[in-house]
Amino acid sequence: MAKEITDRAENYSQWYLDIVKKAGLAENSAVRGCMVIKPTGFAIWEMMKDQLDQMFKDTGHVNAYFPLFIPKSFLSKEAEHVEGFAKECAVVTHHRLMNNPDGPGVVVDPDAKLEEELVVRPTSETIIWNTYKDWIKSYRDLPLLINQWANVVRWEIRTRPFLRTAEFLWQEGHTAHALKVEAVEEAKMIHEVYARFAEDYMAMPVIKGAKSANERFAGALETYTIEALMQDGKALQAGTSHFLGQNFAKAFDVKYLDNNNKEQYVWATSWGVSTRLIGALIMTHSDDDGLVIPPRLAPLQVVIIPIPKPNEMIMAEAEKIVTLLKAKGISVKIDKDKKKRPGFKFAEYEMKGVPIRIGIGKRDLEKGELEIARRDTKEKMNVPIEGIEDYIANLLEEIQANLLARAKAHRAEYTTEASTYEEFKDAIANKGGFVLAHWDGTTETELKIKEETTATLRCIPDDSPIEEGVCIYSGKPSKQKVIFAKAY
Amino acid sequence: MAKEITDRAENYSQWYLDIVKKAGLAENSAVRGCMVIKPTGFAIWEMMKDQLDQMFKDTGHVNAYFPLFIPKSFLSKEAEHVEGFAKECAVVTHHRLMNNPDGPGVVVDPDAKLEEELVVRPTSETIIWNTYKDWIKSYRDLPLLINQWANVVRWEIRTRPFLRTAEFLWQEGHTAHALKVEAVEEAKMIHEVYARFAEDYMAMPVIKGAKSANERFAGALETYTIEALMQDGKALQAGTSHFLGQNFAKAFDVKYLDNNNKEQYVWATSWGVSTRLIGALIMTHSDDDGLVIPPRLAPLQVVIIPIPKPNEMIMAEAEKIVTLLKAKGISVKIDKDKKKRPGFKFAEYEMKGVPIRIGIGKRDLEKGELEIARRDTKEKMNVPIEGIEDYIANLLEEIQANLLARAKAHRAEYTTEASTYEEFKDAIANKGGFVLAHWDGTTETELKIKEETTATLRCIPDDSPIEEGVCIYSGKPSKQKVIFAKAY
Repeated sequence: MAKEITDRAENYSQWYLDIVKKAGLAENSAVRGCMVIKPTGFAIWEMMKDQLDQMFKDTGHVNAYFPLFIPKSFLSKEAEHVEGFAKECAVVTHHRLMNNPDGPGVVVDPDAKLEEELVVRPTSETIIWNTYKDWIKSYRDLPLLINQWANVVRWEIRTRPFLRTAEFLWQEGHTAHALKVEAVEEAKMIHEVYARFAEDYMAMPVIKGAKSANERFAGALETYTIEALMQDGKALQAGTSHFLGQNFAKAFDVKYLDNNNKEQYVWATSWGVSTRLIGALIMTHSDDDGLVIPPRLAPLQVVIIPIPKPNEMIMAEAEKIVTLLKAKGISVKIDKDKKKRPGFKFAEYEMKGVPIRIGIGKRDLEKGELEIARRDTKEKMNVPIEGIEDYIANLLEEIQANLLARAKAHRAEYTTEASTYEEFKDAIANKGGFVLAHWDGTTETELKIKEETTATLRCIPDDSPIEEGVCIYSGKPSKQKVIFAKAY
Repeated sequence: MAKEITDRAENYSQWYLDIVKKAGLAENSAVRGCMVIKPTGFAIWEMMKDQLDQMFKDTGHVNAYFPLFIPKSFLSKEAEHVEGFAKECAVVTHHRLMNNPDGPGVVVDPDAKLEEELVVRPTSETIIWNTYKDWIKSYRDLPLLINQWANVVRWEIRTRPFLRTAEFLWQEGHTAHALKVEAVEEAKMIHEVYARFAEDYMAMPVIKGAKSANERFAGALETYTIEALMQDGKALQAGTSHFLGQNFAKAFDVKYLDNNNKEQYVWATSWGVSTRLIGALIMTHSDDDGLVIPPRLAPLQVVIIPIPKPNEMIMAEAEKIVTLLKAKGISVKIDKDKKKRPGFKFAEYEMKGVPIRIGIGKRDLEKGELEIARRDTKEKMNVPIEGIEDYIANLLEEIQANLLARAKAHRAEYTTEASTYEEFKDAIANKGGFVLAHWDGTTETELKIKEETTATLRCIPDDSPIEEGVCIYSGKPSKQKVIFAKAY
């Protein structure tokens, strides 16, 4: 099976599409730009969702659900927001079809035109803040800490499974606060949650930072981002958290009475991650043999393969191991198929990224051993059956740690500090990866650099030291290095 | 607070709306027919979803995700299906807005008209079977057992929160099988799962049966339904499972090679339950003081209220109890608010349907006791602190059982056997509830009865004995009694 995947070195973009297809993660649908998330891909999303949901609940948030549709006029209420989203949205204009009077099939019923068109939500700030208006009267109603798991639609021209699709699944948090400082703290706290999820669960190191004014979310005063580096040296924005100031509160007239009985506008945040994370996961860890999934997000952590075939003795032993592993909270299954050869099965589970494979054969059993193969390094080890559950539990942790370490090493290798524009251009054009450089803080310079090199300003990193410097492009003073890269 | 709810006896319909509002479950949104599911309501949906999802997985199903949009032409491919759904769907005709050239705001960009209009899914058979065409080639690809959690839109004219809304949340299972008998078995097995969920978790007794031809899902050969009886004597269809025959396989040309290498059309089922179940839950158990939630679906099972106020000694004891209950897997919180009086809190948690309330006061503590109040019967008991965790665990089970028993007794009281049309009309008009009667099996009779009495044929119950009889309406022969009722 592995041969069906294009090598990364040959064509990275095709490699990605091959993995998505051959590992059974997703496929294009009959609707332009919309994908079908297949069971294997959806199982990864469920793992991500469960973990993130728990993290949001642990930080005091609750879930709710708001309408799919947004009245067209709502979008216009926040000036920057409409600029950002009106250009690429699905518009519902009618509410009925009718039999085609001129032939077969159905046509739109012209009598069923809506008074006001509805937009399929590209993001829900407007419909949610219109709702919050009725929910928030007093400081006692605040903070309001709500998250929603939903589908959203943005009419993208060029799409790629998970990375950019017309419809995608995501979560969007929308919080309301009495004080500015509380909203800023919330946006930063979620920023930390996202970074923790990326590193601890996805084994994907991220740079935490703030977006430049030009790259901010439409309607935000500050956008915090986590930026990851893919294997091909391109950056991927993996999750953003926005401090929205009072923009939406003013647009939708959301005020509260403070404890001096004075009316105040409410402060807001919003934040989201999406099925895009599955694309990030693939491009961080996978290899030319298929998908690699970190154990903590693997829907199936261990597969047991009878060698050469399931027989009574082997199955009895396999079932014992299943019981031991399940007791440790490890997900495991036995491949009981009798028609496929072990070699075929090995390639199949490598393709699907199962972290550990256990082979059980007669000769190994006689020696009291099992053959263990780890997906990340492809090493094989003979391991005593005695104590196998602890061995596997430790190995899963080791694989998780190794994937993070490997991704960190890759990022370190592909991070360059440029002190001149020549160095900068050379790094962007020939090496790829993150390039740290001084920047004068203007959108003008940022856009010129983008125009000349295609690199975008990924973020102003939280941990970039304040220091005297000059902008690599304009030569004007700069106080801090920022990160540029070509990006997805 | 309780006074804010209309009594059921006075106006049942208003009582329902009051509960939905006062318990904070849902509210109407700015978009006609679409509701906002508020955190308290959504938490109940999450409980239902988690349980059902586990039941689907335990019976071999996996989740996936298919597009929100369906090309208009797909709907027409199955003749009955388009009849059933085309008349009430949201139609996307454009993919962009633009600044209004004649004033403020945005308008639909006429240049962004779609070549083919897209329908927002009212149900996903068509887009899914169009996908299955590529997934199914051989008998080895079958069965395909897939479920999807999604939002769907049906442009309803009269809406009511949870019971009938333009957008709602649901799950839809879509399975494909090699043999007819397998598809029928699947549809029946899910029918059992739904009934088990209704009785064991919702504490809502249901009648299992098949729909008459007239009431079948558009495109199904057989629809299995679970029918529940609400407190006002009206029936509510709570979940349906459809045997679709080869209708969708033929419409989308989905064939497999059998083990004789012969092409065969695939057999199909689909099945779904929705946020409508929340409406059913409310109308099965709640009372004039507010919501009543069966313990197995209660997001919060126990609330501890310090009396009269939280102080150090009371809080220390409360925290101990929380630890004990959590160790038993019971969800519990302490209401630490110091401003609200206990009486106010009691009414608030009654309104929200928390199954058990524990009051902790100084005098009770001195006696080594707690005051326990159960929501279902409103009884209060003084109970020793010693062994409280077992007492509460048992009481939760007792409440669960009592709610089911109560609902069963109500159903028994409101089930009438009618042997003449006079008796039938009298029962429907004056008593309400389920009416069992012989029916001649024709749609003609079914529709006349509906026209004359507004009662619909709910189902042909699985356990209705085969017996000689005559139709109460036409006097023609009948082999079995069926169930009629006015319905939601």
